[in-house]
Amino acid sequence: MENEFTRILLKHGFQETKARVLASVFTGNSVDGILSHGVNRFTRFITYVQNGLIHPDAEPVLDHSAGAVEQWNGQLGPGPLNAIKCTERAMELARNSGIGCVALSNTNHWMRGGTYGWQAANEGFVFIGWTNTISLMPAWGATDTKLGNNPLVIAVPYGDEAIVLDMAMSQYSYGRMESKALEHSTLDFAGGYNAAGQLTCDPVEILASKRPLPIGYWKGAGLALLLDILSAILSGGLSTHKISEKPDETGVSQVYIAIDTHRLSNFPSIQSIVSGIIDDYQHSFPADEHSTIRYPGERILQIRAANLREGILVNRKIWDEILNLG
Amino acid sequence: MENEFTRILLKHGFQETKARVLASVFTGNSVDGILSHGVNRFTRFITYVQNGLIHPDAEPVLDHSAGAVEQWNGQLGPGPLNAIKCTERAMELARNSGIGCVALSNTNHWMRGGTYGWQAANEGFVFIGWTNTISLMPAWGATDTKLGNNPLVIAVPYGDEAIVLDMAMSQYSYGRMESKALEHSTLDFAGGYNAAGQLTCDPVEILASKRPLPIGYWKGAGLALLLDILSAILSGGLSTHKISEKPDETGVSQVYIAIDTHRLSNFPSIQSIVSGIIDDYQHSFPADEHSTIRYPGERILQIRAANLREGILVNRKIWDEILNLG
Repeated sequence: MENEFTRILLKHGFQETKARVLASVFTGNSVDGILSHGVNRFTRFITYVQNGLIHPDAEPVLDHSAGAVEQWNGQLGPGPLNAIKCTERAMELARNSGIGCVALSNTNHWMRGGTYGWQAANEGFVFIGWTNTISLMPAWGATDTKLGNNPLVIAVPYGDEAIVLDMAMSQYSYGRMESKALEHSTLDFAGGYNAAGQLTCDPVEILASKRPLPIGYWKGAGLALLLDILSAILSGGLSTHKISEKPDETGVSQVYIAIDTHRLSNFPSIQSIVSGIIDDYQHSFPADEHSTIRYPGERILQIRAANLREGILVNRKIWDEILNLG
Repeated sequence: MENEFTRILLKHGFQETKARVLASVFTGNSVDGILSHGVNRFTRFITYVQNGLIHPDAEPVLDHSAGAVEQWNGQLGPGPLNAIKCTERAMELARNSGIGCVALSNTNHWMRGGTYGWQAANEGFVFIGWTNTISLMPAWGATDTKLGNNPLVIAVPYGDEAIVLDMAMSQYSYGRMESKALEHSTLDFAGGYNAAGQLTCDPVEILASKRPLPIGYWKGAGLALLLDILSAILSGGLSTHKISEKPDETGVSQVYIAIDTHRLSNFPSIQSIVSGIIDDYQHSFPADEHSTIRYPGERILQIRAANLREGILVNRKIWDEILNLG
């Protein structure tokens, strides 16, 4: 998969190193079971390149430095490359100042936010980052989409691995609701409103009403609003409502915060603190025999191991489309 | 109210300045309509002082400095005083470095987290802060309480005021469910599980099962876990499971992050960016004639204005108890 992605990216104007890194991000996301931001999204990524929305050669440039906070302009380059660079830069700032913050304007979809959480946590950093998106969710009490789902990523080192929370502000993603609709199955919990304004578990009704439910009702709507405001004011880039004035989602704004755990006085004991918390957590009393108590990112590790052993199950039609790109 | 609080605090060993600041926090929270962390909590605060859980004279001390990150020890002092001090210190660090982070161990309940969001935003700072708490919510898929509700505060300056999100990770607080139970009324949305493991809107059932619902189900549970891990590893203080080994909630861990907006290249345009976002948001299409589209903190301003005009409605029994303290 990685070789095919690299080959196709090279054909679409990417330099060798950039093609290889991007191919590894799309493949890594697929290995981790996040197909929606891996193999299933690759064709759309190439289409964006073909349409001039993603600039293969563009690199982020420093706009302004304010100590341990920096404002970068992504110049509409490939989202994952900009994100890797800004995560790296936030870590550099944190090595110097304990904490570092990079606010990035004018970038593109970073695919899976968790990728950058793992990147930082694997180097021993705490990571807090988020992106805004095009509008796709109403304000609380409203019917028209005004809010992005603005995924928030929080990651901490955990032994040789990491605990990585990667959560959008909608209860279910559109991708998830579309797959459920195709399977003619329903959501486990209400995922939005139907046309009559009633909460529903039917993904078809929610896709039609365009009223997905924010996590925790008014709370997730509020958090989505604040994350958008922070993205826009810290980076000086576009907010969700400005992004949504364009036909395609491009020019999004992101924030990357890293904290260097090596510099904390309790660095030697951090891993035993985390292990103590997780150990207690995993000794929870399961609600029933089907319950599994997992920490964020734990299931990813299991999926990763299984996929590396057995291969990734890819939809043939999607794979054929990809091969046709090259 | 503020004079009575000051008088009683002075009688319980607080120095004049500290008594006045604490009285103003408890009164301010009451004026803002957050009685649960204002007048209704004052007696419990004094009881904690009487029982030696809150040390009136204790002040936070710097344990370790790592550039723009500092680790402070709250020495079991009064939570609101420690919080004001750490917010102030995070802003000082941010004035120097663009961003500042104070991690505080060994402190006490900060009452309303939003207080510190307003404190920072009113000085032109972005604020991101949270606290861990005693365990009161199960992990996702579990029945025993392992997670705190770990309130998260995000604040940004907005004209002369602020937009302040102050949200706990449980859908409803125990305080809210207790009031609803006293009123014999039900919650608007499912707030937890009953003894049979079914979602319910009945606060009595949830108070009995001790299974309040995290916001967004597995998502809020994951966020609560990560906020606790960050609180504990950054401060070197206690995690929720360690706090919960004690009979009372004391010695909690908190994180205060401030970003100085004055140092951003786009500082002159920040207020127009925020106004643009809020203006668009408020032009949402309401779901019905009863819907009001509000940004986080907006209703507080209305309640504050009304209470300053008309006075605060206080439960007589609670007020009499307070007067008896002095």
